[in-house]
Amino acid sequence: MMMRAGRVHAYHEPITVDEVNIPEIEGPNDVIVKIGGAGVCRTDLHIVEGIWKDAVSNPALPYTIGHENAGWIESVGSAVSHLKRGDPVIVHPLMTCGLCPACRGGRDMYCTDSHFPGLDGTDGGYAEYLKTSVRSVIPLAPGTDPVLLAPYADAGITAYHAIKKLAPLTYPGCRVVVLGIGGLGHFAVQILRALTPATVIAVDAQKQRLAFAESIGSHHGVWAGNDGGVAGVHAIAPEGVDIVFDFVGEHGTPDASLAMLAKGGSYSVIGYGGQVKVPTLDFVNQEINIVGNLVGTYNELAELMELNHQGRVTITAQQFPLADAPKVLAMLDGGQIIGRAVLVP
Amino acid sequence: MMMRAGRVHAYHEPITVDEVNIPEIEGPNDVIVKIGGAGVCRTDLHIVEGIWKDAVSNPALPYTIGHENAGWIESVGSAVSHLKRGDPVIVHPLMTCGLCPACRGGRDMYCTDSHFPGLDGTDGGYAEYLKTSVRSVIPLAPGTDPVLLAPYADAGITAYHAIKKLAPLTYPGCRVVVLGIGGLGHFAVQILRALTPATVIAVDAQKQRLAFAESIGSHHGVWAGNDGGVAGVHAIAPEGVDIVFDFVGEHGTPDASLAMLAKGGSYSVIGYGGQVKVPTLDFVNQEINIVGNLVGTYNELAELMELNHQGRVTITAQQFPLADAPKVLAMLDGGQIIGRAVLVP
Amino acid sequence: MMMRAGRVHAYHEPITVDEVNIPEIEGPNDVIVKIGGAGVCRTDLHIVEGIWKDAVSNPALPYTIGHENAGWIESVGSAVSHLKRGDPVIVHPLMTCGLCPACRGGRDMYCTDSHFPGLDGTDGGYAEYLKTSVRSVIPLAPGTDPVLLAPYADAGITAYHAIKKLAPLTYPGCRVVVLGIGGLGHFAVQILRALTPATVIAVDAQKQRLAFAESIGSHHGVWAGNDGGVAGVHAIAPEGVDIVFDFVGEHGTPDASLAMLAKGGSYSVIGYGGQVKVPTLDFVNQEINIVGNLVGTYNELAELMELNHQGRVTITAQQFPLADAPKVLAMLDGGQIIGRAVLVP
Amino acid sequence: MMMRAGRVHAYHEPITVDEVNIPEIEGPNDVIVKIGGAGVCRTDLHIVEGIWKDAVSNPALPYTIGHENAGWIESVGSAVSHLKRGDPVIVHPLMTCGLCPACRGGRDMYCTDSHFPGLDGTDGGYAEYLKTSVRSVIPLAPGTDPVLLAPYADAGITAYHAIKKLAPLTYPGCRVVVLGIGGLGHFAVQILRALTPATVIAVDAQKQRLAFAESIGSHHGVWAGNDGGVAGVHAIAPEGVDIVFDFVGEHGTPDASLAMLAKGGSYSVIGYGGQVKVPTLDFVNQEINIVGNLVGTYNELAELMELNHQGRVTITAQQFPLADAPKVLAMLDGGQIIGRAVLVP
Repeated sequence: MMMRAGRVHAYHEPITVDEVNIPEIEGPNDVIVKIGGAGVCRTDLHIVEGIWKDAVSNPALPYTIGHENAGWIESVGSAVSHLKRGDPVIVHPLMTCGLCPACRGGRDMYCTDSHFPGLDGTDGGYAEYLKTSVRSVIPLAPGTDPVLLAPYADAGITAYHAIKKLAPLTYPGCRVVVLGIGGLGHFAVQILRALTPATVIAVDAQKQRLAFAESIGSHHGVWAGNDGGVAGVHAIAPEGVDIVFDFVGEHGTPDASLAMLAKGGSYSVIGYGGQVKVPTLDFVNQEINIVGNLVGTYNELAELMELNHQGRVTITAQQFPLADAPKVLAMLDGGQIIGRAVLVP
Repeated sequence: MMMRAGRVHAYHEPITVDEVNIPEIEGPNDVIVKIGGAGVCRTDLHIVEGIWKDAVSNPALPYTIGHENAGWIESVGSAVSHLKRGDPVIVHPLMTCGLCPACRGGRDMYCTDSHFPGLDGTDGGYAEYLKTSVRSVIPLAPGTDPVLLAPYADAGITAYHAIKKLAPLTYPGCRVVVLGIGGLGHFAVQILRALTPATVIAVDAQKQRLAFAESIGSHHGVWAGNDGGVAGVHAIAPEGVDIVFDFVGEHGTPDASLAMLAKGGSYSVIGYGGQVKVPTLDFVNQEINIVGNLVGTYNELAELMELNHQGRVTITAQQFPLADAPKVLAMLDGGQIIGRAVLVP
Repeated sequence: MMMRAGRVHAYHEPITVDEVNIPEIEGPNDVIVKIGGAGVCRTDLHIVEGIWKDAVSNPALPYTIGHENAGWIESVGSAVSHLKRGDPVIVHPLMTCGLCPACRGGRDMYCTDSHFPGLDGTDGGYAEYLKTSVRSVIPLAPGTDPVLLAPYADAGITAYHAIKKLAPLTYPGCRVVVLGIGGLGHFAVQILRALTPATVIAVDAQKQRLAFAESIGSHHGVWAGNDGGVAGVHAIAPEGVDIVFDFVGEHGTPDASLAMLAKGGSYSVIGYGGQVKVPTLDFVNQEINIVGNLVGTYNELAELMELNHQGRVTITAQQFPLADAPKVLAMLDGGQIIGRAVLVP
Repeated sequence: MMMRAGRVHAYHEPITVDEVNIPEIEGPNDVIVKIGGAGVCRTDLHIVEGIWKDAVSNPALPYTIGHENAGWIESVGSAVSHLKRGDPVIVHPLMTCGLCPACRGGRDMYCTDSHFPGLDGTDGGYAEYLKTSVRSVIPLAPGTDPVLLAPYADAGITAYHAIKKLAPLTYPGCRVVVLGIGGLGHFAVQILRALTPATVIAVDAQKQRLAFAESIGSHHGVWAGNDGGVAGVHAIAPEGVDIVFDFVGEHGTPDASLAMLAKGGSYSVIGYGGQVKVPTLDFVNQEINIVGNLVGTYNELAELMELNHQGRVTITAQQFPLADAPKVLAMLDGGQIIGRAVLVP
């Protein structure tokens, strides 16, 4: 049985949509998901650029990308009893062991025996079917349409993880910057409003995105302009802000983010591509912190889906046919996607 | 009435010991402390180098340095009733307002109306007497000799603050590096043993300091050698360590520290002078954190003095006469001080 | 100079409104507040009943009650520079020393040298003027009318304290019961919505209060009925709820609250008068917790006033003239007050 | 194939040692452990008394008791690859699903699909062989003799769990009471010293146990005497103590524990059998907390075994042959066991 799948054949070259075998149940904990939608992420561009190659042990090419997946249960292994064909599900991006201290301790993104479909050479979700593990599947409420929920599986969970980790630092009157109102940033604004009492300042280089940010809950909007938004943020928070969530991580945003912080403030890095440069004196004199962020945990994705179910976090997503995957990646690279693009087989 | 005091007259020039007026009680909350000992700190060298000038609003010169002070109560203002002449005390380095949210919330090092004697142009403790505030004085147990306790007031409290903040991350089996077994580092080894179950790895470029570290509680010693100790630490902790406390902060230690971290690890910066440079990708892929550290709070100094009182933290200190202050600073710069130097009027 | 003040002369007898001397500035940190409004609290009834007598060292009678106060600065002591006559303020109920570890560590309600005007024999705010300390006064935004804000000073801060302490336990999908939608409970519903993502279940014996609770943010309302609401809560949360905030604390609510908890749940006690009785086995088998609550801290009251300023917490308060104080206490005892009663001189 | 097993046939009657079938591997995640030692716990007495019957859904009798087990791997299911015959292991008492939010979030003792061998009708470890799951087995360092380590599996982990949960409340100078220096209490003293800087006060009705407590790390010993030790504790801590860990939970210890607490203190309940009775006013006026404790998590047991491996926690255990199980239970009931009894097949 064959299906279509979008695969990387060589770094720095466009992916192609190929005919490949449909995955099959092999182990007792396997689950096959019929893909409803697969989100298109900036990380997919970075994979094609070869940036991740060394970090994931140089996987053999070709393989299918796509790590932001939702759909319906197609079939399950012999040890899986609580899922049945047709159940709507969203897929946590990591396949984890369930036995290591990290998996047991609520830090499953540090699993010492994990696979990351669509990133580390394991086949991902730019396809009609995806093979994953019972531990990675989150059932959705009966009747839910999973197609446009795919972006929660990576863009959403990553924003949720970064915010939940620092939420205990917030208090009424606390000011927090969301830098970059794209796929992740527009999750972040809503999640901040749902989880914390913070005053939210959106910063972006595109003015229409500031209006969008205010429509979904930000209290202030600052145009990034020539200084990355530093002066605009200081006009609102003269002593600086408590937290900056940087969803860009390149093109000068690390410097701007650090310049926005109050004494004792935290710079949370989610976007990547650039470099952080800071004199050690600043850590001592200002007692600032820099906080890294991997993808979130299974439980965090389940909590985020609960917020979606309650109507407190919603997203803007555009559908494209799977066959257009190469074109959609090019559009993303060119800044032509509004919200998040989702491929539909 | 006159006294001797070690004062900065110009940046990049040695301090001189001058005759100056003895400070007097002016406000109801003032306290005059007769100095028993004043610790000599690397920050005193940095002050003379002009590094702090901009960070503390270019204070008028000359002024008396010395921010690590202990002695006996000499006189008190009208509102002070619980202290009397002759009581042994140690002096928290910061004079704070007691009214701002930071002072009320256990973060007095962020006081919005503070003075830092010996650093910001307010006269410090390289002198026979020091004027401070009732809020900055910690009574010692009756009969305590305060002379050699001075280093607790800054070296000790800074190490204590950095460790207490990250102590909740430790667990049995957790590995922690103390990088730099000098004045602060030798506090750190003992404080880690008193507060946490962590396995302590001392790293230093001088082999005799590693033996010293083991004598006061470290479980392992790694010679910094050519690679800053990275390979030696990985030999003990193949996946990297959970925390690095860097008491050097220059000469390549930031790079070495980051290279020692496990996924999710924290790099705590206490020493300064150098620069941190990290690709944003490392924060995302490794979820590392960088944690800054100001001086500790009044309560933290009180807790540290309790550990000293219980005999769980002790220090090595060498006495020098106040008149030798310029020479002692030169010795510190030349690496000729073992433990901590204390000036005695 | 004389003023009117509502004073307790004997336990179990109504208070009377007497002519007394206006308080005067004596110490450098004293502050005299011209009362705009003084909230009438169930604790005032308990004071008259003699319940607090032993807990506060049997104060000499008569004294002026009223611990929930707001108004304008009338005069200040010599050490107070940031407040001037006419500034609108709300008064934290406790006068604290600012020097003890609790005051320094964000736990000022444990101050070891404190006074509690209106409760411990120190004159309170059922009066035209109140003497307090500079440390107890929170400036309000210029132009704010303090009269009807008085209930924030005790009812509000107590609810805020209880919720802020347990807020870290909440998560999307978490269910929390607010038991008793009176003066404190109607603060609690709004504060929970502002600080946490929890689903809020209001429980009360009066059905119109459930409708009121839903109008200010609760997601569900359960009529206490014959079983204290236990069955109704289990219909919504079959495994039990994560937290019960009990603003009644008597008439069977402790038993009902404990019966509503899920495994690992927390019962937060704010109301009082009754008794908690639990087999130790329940603590072991269910791992439940019981959490006590004193009044909140100065910083907590400041944060709550920020929520009020942002429009996220508002209250229902009825004005009465100070002369009616005895009658208003009787009305409160009879359940005839809606929201909170405020006495206006 | 047959083996001997100690089974409950009827409540309130002694167990008998019977011939039963040796358990066999059935599912892919099953593990059979050859028992080296099985600890004898006060809970085993309570099971026979019928106290647990209702809490665990009235299990069918007879079944094999024994929930504190260590030994060697005998055989494993098809999905288990990291364990082999002869590996020394200790067994976490709970069999958990690995899929529910609790299992994923570091709270596996709340697993919603769990079994508790030796307690809920599932056969336990008073036997030659025990069937459990791959998720419940903790490998010990190669060459470790597991026989006398069995008590760590329940007595140890329970003490560890209770202490780890409250360890963040401790600080230098903090005073903590360990009430009851029996099987769990003698773990507790050592764990407190390893994890926290607290000053430890042991309280017991038997004076020789106080001497024993001091030999393993307690700073003070207080004889329970007529008042449960309240006066003795107040002589050491006039304001009361921060935490009481009550390993008795009956015969008046709840009242004594509460009377020992300082304002804001926490009473941690581990022993059971009695009742807690407190006026709600005490929770308000004193802001005390009562903290329940289930058994600890898998990760907690792994951390405790690390402390044992480091030599920081050791125990006193007496060996008895499995055939003597009924007699050993009677001895425990009669207070004739020193430290912990371990049955050896």
